[in-house]
Amino acid sequence: MRATVIHGPNDIRIEEVPDPVVQQPTDAVVRVVNACICGSDLWAYRGVAAREAGQRIGHEFLGIVEAVGSEVNGVKPGDFVVAPFVWSDGVCDYCREGLQTSCPHGGFWGSVGSDGGQGEAVRVPFADGTLVQLPKEAATDQALLPSLLALSDVMATGHHAAVAAKVRPGATVAVVGDGAVGLCGVLAAQRLGAERIIALGRHEVRTAIARRFGATDVVAERGEAAIEAVRELTGGHGAHAVLEAVGTEESMRTAISIARDGGAVGYVGVPHGGSAGVDIGQMFGRNVALGGGVAPARAYIPELLVDVLNGRIEPGLVFDRTVDLDGVPDGYRAMDDRSALKVRIAF
Amino acid sequence: MRATVIHGPNDIRIEEVPDPVVQQPTDAVVRVVNACICGSDLWAYRGVAAREAGQRIGHEFLGIVEAVGSEVNGVKPGDFVVAPFVWSDGVCDYCREGLQTSCPHGGFWGSVGSDGGQGEAVRVPFADGTLVQLPKEAATDQALLPSLLALSDVMATGHHAAVAAKVRPGATVAVVGDGAVGLCGVLAAQRLGAERIIALGRHEVRTAIARRFGATDVVAERGEAAIEAVRELTGGHGAHAVLEAVGTEESMRTAISIARDGGAVGYVGVPHGGSAGVDIGQMFGRNVALGGGVAPARAYIPELLVDVLNGRIEPGLVFDRTVDLDGVPDGYRAMDDRSALKVRIAF
Repeated sequence: MRATVIHGPNDIRIEEVPDPVVQQPTDAVVRVVNACICGSDLWAYRGVAAREAGQRIGHEFLGIVEAVGSEVNGVKPGDFVVAPFVWSDGVCDYCREGLQTSCPHGGFWGSVGSDGGQGEAVRVPFADGTLVQLPKEAATDQALLPSLLALSDVMATGHHAAVAAKVRPGATVAVVGDGAVGLCGVLAAQRLGAERIIALGRHEVRTAIARRFGATDVVAERGEAAIEAVRELTGGHGAHAVLEAVGTEESMRTAISIARDGGAVGYVGVPHGGSAGVDIGQMFGRNVALGGGVAPARAYIPELLVDVLNGRIEPGLVFDRTVDLDGVPDGYRAMDDRSALKVRIAF
Repeated sequence: MRATVIHGPNDIRIEEVPDPVVQQPTDAVVRVVNACICGSDLWAYRGVAAREAGQRIGHEFLGIVEAVGSEVNGVKPGDFVVAPFVWSDGVCDYCREGLQTSCPHGGFWGSVGSDGGQGEAVRVPFADGTLVQLPKEAATDQALLPSLLALSDVMATGHHAAVAAKVRPGATVAVVGDGAVGLCGVLAAQRLGAERIIALGRHEVRTAIARRFGATDVVAERGEAAIEAVRELTGGHGAHAVLEAVGTEESMRTAISIARDGGAVGYVGVPHGGSAGVDIGQMFGRNVALGGGVAPARAYIPELLVDVLNGRIEPGLVFDRTVDLDGVPDGYRAMDDRSALKVRIAF
């Protein structure tokens, strides 16, 4: 089969690789229908996150089950399924508690020796614990596919940020970051009943989506000016809940600074600034809490799926470009230069 | 009257100062019955926290109301009251939400221009918002006084750490710090239903109190060895809830490292190591949350008072020495060289 392979910074290639097969009795093989490129893939693309030359890449996909091992009971060939961005065994304490990202048997698509999501097919370890069934008729529903695909990571991650920031009905929420995750954070906050949602972002295409997702205010400033603007919008107090969806030192500093005393920052941006942006002195005096991390998408997909299917949320709007497999290198370039927000790959 | 005054590092004096009087219609004057010395007073004593020469000190006291302003309705002369370590107006949004430490009219005893708790009397701003009534007969109950006094800070602060760390019935809890706050954190965790409480500490007098307060295990190691020991005690997983009651870089690092994936660190140690101990990369991958800060003691005193009065908790056991006002400088020395755990001042 053909799959996306990373050979080094800015070097993404489509290559012939071995067809995946069931290796363990708990495996499934999924023929990919849609995959996509994540903002976090760009850390590898830019050489910030190290990868071995020839490693697979991509961790978001949905598709049709092609084969299953002898111990797989939850899915069967022909089923339409979505995968969260981490696989997990489904039976350990962490999986039962809904923190599948800490499963001792879990792993990330595209790690050394495993398939990546941006390929024609994927071997899925622990298929029963990992995959979530989707309605079979949705596999050809071009209007629905993008939103179902968004469940694999960005919508689940935005939701995780909202949960970690303790978004409650009536809350004032601020979202730092206008990437796909930040926008899904806006949507998640709206879904959880936030009364006011302040989106921080300066790209008009993106802030337009933020408004469609429920943002009531947009702040285009950055740094100190952004902090001032949010404080002004909130009577000097800041937001009850702040979603941090960038992962830099400045974004973390901004997030903590715009939280209301007693509020919480939910962070899902992969930290690339160390702890320098975490202003513990400010957090202490104002009782600002910090939570979040890698999102247990597997725990959230079932409840979010309900609202995708009933039309209450449409996270697929974050996709603004679709390519075929050969178009993936172009898709990386487009996301890297921010001419595309998020690129979908249709097989 | 006579009160404790700090003139510089290691320079604590008892001096004649002006008698406090009602200045604002919302003021009360309280004649102090008991006060105490806090571990956080030692930061000033050691010169780590700056103070102006001649500033008052002490922020924990209980006593008898001597006079009230014309707008005070909640307390009257003769009432027995305890003060939290921060005063607050009682009517703003933050006070109503139970975050009195963020009251815009609030302040700390002993700040410039205000009385400190370690004196014969104290002018109390916003008496209705600040003071909590105690049973009048308790004012002469020598067995009860220490536990009532502990409500002003250490017991409320230990409780705040437990709440911020999300201690729940059945939880495994670890407490970093064997000072009075850490010990009260053990007691708070026990009160909230923790099943297992691991106290980190090496002073046998203190760990004996920890055990009396409900600690099921004691870890005497520090640093990496302490992390190893807690992991071994918890099947490799760490504690659901970790209370950080020291405030150094190492203690924060230890606290985060011994939290279970998906768990929370509740920190109340005044941060003196900056953010360096906050390992955001570890927090992200394991979904460890961080909450806490300066404790809104005023919010907690009523519920904790119930359990002091019914005998369910006896936080006063953290006091291991009692001095009169003239003995206060000796009390500081004893706490500084750790020959005393916490010193009570009886007037």
